[in-house]
Amino acid sequence: MKHIGEFQLIKQLTKILEIKDKNVLVGFGDDCACVNVESKKLVFTADIQIENVHFLKDKVKPTQLGWKLISVNVSDVVACGGVPKWAVISIAVPKNINIKWLKEVYEGIKKALDFYKFDIIGGNTSSSSEIIFDLFLTGETEKFVSRSGAKPGDYVFISGHTGLSRAGLELLLMDKKDYEDFEKRLIKTHLEPVARIDLQEKISRYATACIDISDGLVGDLGHISENSKVKIILEKEKIPISADLEKYCKKYNKNPYDYILYGGEDYQLAFTIKKEDIIHFKNEFLIGIVEKGEGIYLDNKKLKEKGFEHI
Amino acid sequence: MKHIGEFQLIKQLTKILEIKDKNVLVGFGDDCACVNVESKKLVFTADIQIENVHFLKDKVKPTQLGWKLISVNVSDVVACGGVPKWAVISIAVPKNINIKWLKEVYEGIKKALDFYKFDIIGGNTSSSSEIIFDLFLTGETEKFVSRSGAKPGDYVFISGHTGLSRAGLELLLMDKKDYEDFEKRLIKTHLEPVARIDLQEKISRYATACIDISDGLVGDLGHISENSKVKIILEKEKIPISADLEKYCKKYNKNPYDYILYGGEDYQLAFTIKKEDIIHFKNEFLIGIVEKGEGIYLDNKKLKEKGFEHI
Repeated sequence: MKHIGEFQLIKQLTKILEIKDKNVLVGFGDDCACVNVESKKLVFTADIQIENVHFLKDKVKPTQLGWKLISVNVSDVVACGGVPKWAVISIAVPKNINIKWLKEVYEGIKKALDFYKFDIIGGNTSSSSEIIFDLFLTGETEKFVSRSGAKPGDYVFISGHTGLSRAGLELLLMDKKDYEDFEKRLIKTHLEPVARIDLQEKISRYATACIDISDGLVGDLGHISENSKVKIILEKEKIPISADLEKYCKKYNKNPYDYILYGGEDYQLAFTIKKEDIIHFKNEFLIGIVEKGEGIYLDNKKLKEKGFEHI
Repeated sequence: MKHIGEFQLIKQLTKILEIKDKNVLVGFGDDCACVNVESKKLVFTADIQIENVHFLKDKVKPTQLGWKLISVNVSDVVACGGVPKWAVISIAVPKNINIKWLKEVYEGIKKALDFYKFDIIGGNTSSSSEIIFDLFLTGETEKFVSRSGAKPGDYVFISGHTGLSRAGLELLLMDKKDYEDFEKRLIKTHLEPVARIDLQEKISRYATACIDISDGLVGDLGHISENSKVKIILEKEKIPISADLEKYCKKYNKNPYDYILYGGEDYQLAFTIKKEDIIHFKNEFLIGIVEKGEGIYLDNKKLKEKGFEHI
């Protein structure tokens, strides 16, 4: 796959397919697909965890892995304004898998299902050389919030700090014997992300566009910018830096903005709202504004949309 | 996973989960899960194709692989009386994947979608060491046909010949330079199975229980027998042997019943109907009867329910 990234590949492949069903409101290219079923709007998404790609077996607790599998999928549904409803799980494991380990993954899954309040209702099991957990999640939404609804004049918000997960991943890979408390918190952010289901109603009601930050803030805002055909201007001084990330960057001599702007797997939400709706978002961070044009700017500087690509 | 098979593992893991939503009509343990959405019944299933587990890259054309991925999922939906509607595809490929090959898989997928008349509406792409195609299919059904509705007195039918796919697989693995015509047909049955969507309406209307034959006739009838709490008696002389399988068994000195009863991946349907509905099934094969009791019998002999386990 030389010279071709994940997004480019998806575009080329999905061009081969063609959606014919008129009940499909949203197809490829958003956090979820969306379909009309009588008076309901159902949303569909899938996200996979593959050993040695998305996780290293000896660096994550099985309960954390189960939790994360659920959370990353819920994050996509919430980003579309939806509530998670029913999931189907597809697992593939080596023949010599430790059953106790596998059961602990399911304990983590159960904990997450209880937290996010939905069920896994079916599944498929097969063998493989590396461990695979693939989740397919169906949700329901009153109003589908896409990536394409941002309008000039809208405010740009994020639901929380970004960059922590990437710092956590780096710390994890350092394989240190002892970690400071703030380092442990950063690692936890990476291993146990919490999807912002608490914001689902507000997103569904007020967001003109929304995306979950899995590929990095700039990369993901780039999808909103591209799909909505707008320019997004971020104000550097308004973008929050978490105290833990600041400590991390000082200790390891890093630039926090590399993390904040380009770190992946935050699973916070980036969204736009009409100016008059700002009163409803007191706990979230206003970081910029939507204008006519294209691209993502930090103050006056155009940013590269280099996201964290999984391929 | 010593001493534990696929079915046993699924049971142990799903016991950890607990379905709370009252709209879920059928959970784990059938070909599909089923959910009430207003006046509709939606069914959900998933089936995966993993390199070196489900397929060998140099033994299958990419178009065939795409076709099979779709067909095996449709087969599950049809077995529940459903019509396939919307799918989400999850793919993972090595970074050095040949894009042309991948596009040809999608050409096969597109051909199957056109044939079965539904859409893939979303997806997810990531990297992996071996190629993975995982499909999640949502269908719709008027009446959910489960594995548990067979009643004493019902007739047992199969929709077509069984055992061909396993013979085809064995031929494929022989790696011969030249194949006879009947051998090519057997191989095609393995590589390009056709889900019996032509029977969907009749299954939905008349079948008291149904399953698609993926693990072998006896193994899959065993699921109906177990879930319906009935005995199934097959009449040996009524079970059809395809001419091609007969030729194969003569040429290679095999017992055709090993294939017919225990060969996997046939993707024919095994189903039960009330006696009075027999007039609607003139092209299918009546192979036995349901009685009170348990187990699968061939005439008077109790059969081992040794299915083809993927693990």
